[in-house]
Amino acid sequence: MTAEILSIGTELLLGDVLNTNSQFLASELAKLGIDCYFQTTVGDNTERVKEAAIAALARADILITTGGLGPTSDDLTIESLAELFESPMILDREVLNKIESLFAKRPYKMPESNKKQAYRPQGADLLPNPVGTAPGIIWQLSEKLLKTASISSSGVTKSILSFPGVPFECKTMWRETAVPFLQKHYASGCLWSCELKHYGIGESALAEMFAHLLGKSNPTVAPYAGRGECRLRVSAKASSSEQAIILAQPIVDEITTKSKHLCYGINDDTLESAVGKLLSSKNLTVAVAESCTGGLVSKRLTDVVGSSKYIRLNVVTYADQFKHTLLNVSQDILATHGAVSAQCAEAMAHGVRTLSSTDIGLSITGIAGPDGGTTDKPVGLIYLGLAANNFYTGKILHLGPSTPRAELRYRAANEALNMVRLYLLDPKLLA
Amino acid sequence: MTAEILSIGTELLLGDVLNTNSQFLASELAKLGIDCYFQTTVGDNTERVKEAAIAALARADILITTGGLGPTSDDLTIESLAELFESPMILDREVLNKIESLFAKRPYKMPESNKKQAYRPQGADLLPNPVGTAPGIIWQLSEKLLKTASISSSGVTKSILSFPGVPFECKTMWRETAVPFLQKHYASGCLWSCELKHYGIGESALAEMFAHLLGKSNPTVAPYAGRGECRLRVSAKASSSEQAIILAQPIVDEITTKSKHLCYGINDDTLESAVGKLLSSKNLTVAVAESCTGGLVSKRLTDVVGSSKYIRLNVVTYADQFKHTLLNVSQDILATHGAVSAQCAEAMAHGVRTLSSTDIGLSITGIAGPDGGTTDKPVGLIYLGLAANNFYTGKILHLGPSTPRAELRYRAANEALNMVRLYLLDPKLLA
Repeated sequence: MTAEILSIGTELLLGDVLNTNSQFLASELAKLGIDCYFQTTVGDNTERVKEAAIAALARADILITTGGLGPTSDDLTIESLAELFESPMILDREVLNKIESLFAKRPYKMPESNKKQAYRPQGADLLPNPVGTAPGIIWQLSEKLLKTASISSSGVTKSILSFPGVPFECKTMWRETAVPFLQKHYASGCLWSCELKHYGIGESALAEMFAHLLGKSNPTVAPYAGRGECRLRVSAKASSSEQAIILAQPIVDEITTKSKHLCYGINDDTLESAVGKLLSSKNLTVAVAESCTGGLVSKRLTDVVGSSKYIRLNVVTYADQFKHTLLNVSQDILATHGAVSAQCAEAMAHGVRTLSSTDIGLSITGIAGPDGGTTDKPVGLIYLGLAANNFYTGKILHLGPSTPRAELRYRAANEALNMVRLYLLDPKLLA
Repeated sequence: MTAEILSIGTELLLGDVLNTNSQFLASELAKLGIDCYFQTTVGDNTERVKEAAIAALARADILITTGGLGPTSDDLTIESLAELFESPMILDREVLNKIESLFAKRPYKMPESNKKQAYRPQGADLLPNPVGTAPGIIWQLSEKLLKTASISSSGVTKSILSFPGVPFECKTMWRETAVPFLQKHYASGCLWSCELKHYGIGESALAEMFAHLLGKSNPTVAPYAGRGECRLRVSAKASSSEQAIILAQPIVDEITTKSKHLCYGINDDTLESAVGKLLSSKNLTVAVAESCTGGLVSKRLTDVVGSSKYIRLNVVTYADQFKHTLLNVSQDILATHGAVSAQCAEAMAHGVRTLSSTDIGLSITGIAGPDGGTTDKPVGLIYLGLAANNFYTGKILHLGPSTPRAELRYRAANEALNMVRLYLLDPKLLA
């Protein structure tokens, strides 16, 4: 089975919006074992939507569209598809009621234009949108309909699935409705794959470590460089996902055994969720005192479901005054070494641990730029500290003055989270 | 003039990599006034690269490809294009020398495979890569060559520009070589555009408010729904960017005048940068006490360059104990109303304002889920508070128990930031 992804939106063609839907859908199709050989993007233009839809349906069994389902006049995906197959648009009273009731809760009247979202081509089914006003469609195209658009079917039923362009809505609808539909009608064979996430090793070093696995065909192993991390993707294809897992498991085991603490997790695991799992299992707590990262580490730690079990208090002491009053960093350290110093990081880590009565105190202080750097203390100089019972370790990062602020903060947060992870695995790893 | 973007890479089709090159190139083409109506993505497959290239060159004057220029055997963009136009591949000694000298600086020998990167089709020019080993090509296609591939030229010279897939290399090469080339050969007119960002109004209501502008052709006005916000894009085309701005300015002014406080900024502005600008200009400071958002508001406020001017201290009081000890929320409030209550939000806002000695104290407390909800206090129930000198206002959000944790936290942060923004514009807006 093959599918194609057609993204619709002038904002994509103008580069105003990053197309994250294509990536999401592509990886979801891969998980279902449905091959995808083409992704296309066109603007909100009837002729080009039709042209792209014809080309895609001529090649593939399934066409997945995103975007152009909004209430405004430039949203014309559904109308274009209806036109292509010469199907009249019909009003779905139930959908209209749902949209009206959504607006009833809002402080303003439903604009007339939203009524448009309750129409769909005759013969197309509703793809419900539990999180917004724009429903999508699932349209199983008969041979007769395909003929109308001069598309040859090779006896296979072809389908169109249309989703809104808002990524959150697209994802929710995909998971709740599209996956069961595709599994029922199209998924053949199963691709099972997983990503083994590594931190603290580069892509080429990781590829070298597992060079003997990279040439394999089933399962395949491929390295990818991510944002401050590296992933090894193991994919196996078989008649069932159980069989595929049996094929892949020995390779997964070999990798995790060999890469030890460098592998921090699998698939959706993050450094923060890895830290969370370790804290939970050891029944320990952590508190963070941040300066240059401004709350990012705290935000990431609390992204994790259940983090209230091990997070009690975090502070963002941006001004020196509060490093002193709240965290007990001495005026002497601040005057002699400054807030961006190993001494300050150490005092902050101890200070936040005491303030919050947690097992671990973590601190980050540095210069995130783009301004504020000096010759001695350039942008990108960041000190980390980790204090625990009878334990302290510090780390200096030199992330470089040309690294953008957001990237620099993100990498510093990675290093801080990884410090906690390594401490929890074995404090000796921080030696 | 029209161009198309063809992204080549199996990793894109599998969803392993986000296609940021397409967005970059699309926005660059728009800046040059070159229209782009199609973006296509295919894998590292000769037949599909050729099929996509033929389709693109049949429609457009310029084909821009990214990816598939690496040294490994699955990188076959250039070979596929050479095959399409039946052009032999020739070795460029100078490029080979450059690659060899790059490797001379590295601790390991040049792999034989890298030699491949010094070849290009006869007739194609070099597109130098100052930051990597893979050069690109600029290939001006004669009528004869186009005929070879059965592509009709309408008397216009068509061109192919090929870039590596590594975003940093692609961007650098684009700016240094491609832009001057395209400006010389193709750019006609200038597109100027801006996005006016709105918060607190839906897409359809915004479209209705400016319905009389949406049909215009130059400048054009189009609405887009973003994540918790709406944007109106104003685009004008003229012979120079100055002329385009003159065309667009009256429309921009009309929109901002009419949408008043609903419009919080333009282009790269964010709610947090809008808050930052207002705080800076009024010389005021803010402090945040977060519970369910766990540092997200603090992180976003400090994403803004120069935020140390108005941020001194933020706290994430996840455990009730610290709402009491640090923020002075009374035990009575915690016992009677609980931490997720209007009373607690109010006490937290006053408390963080006092603790940090700032002008404004902002608080957020709620249930981010997915667990922890009750009938009385379901997931998605969030209380916000804003305290200032002789001023307090609170707000209740019901974001719904089915909203995912991350989305719920993001929307609550938006509302909190917008509260500060409205307060700074005019406290009456919060009435």
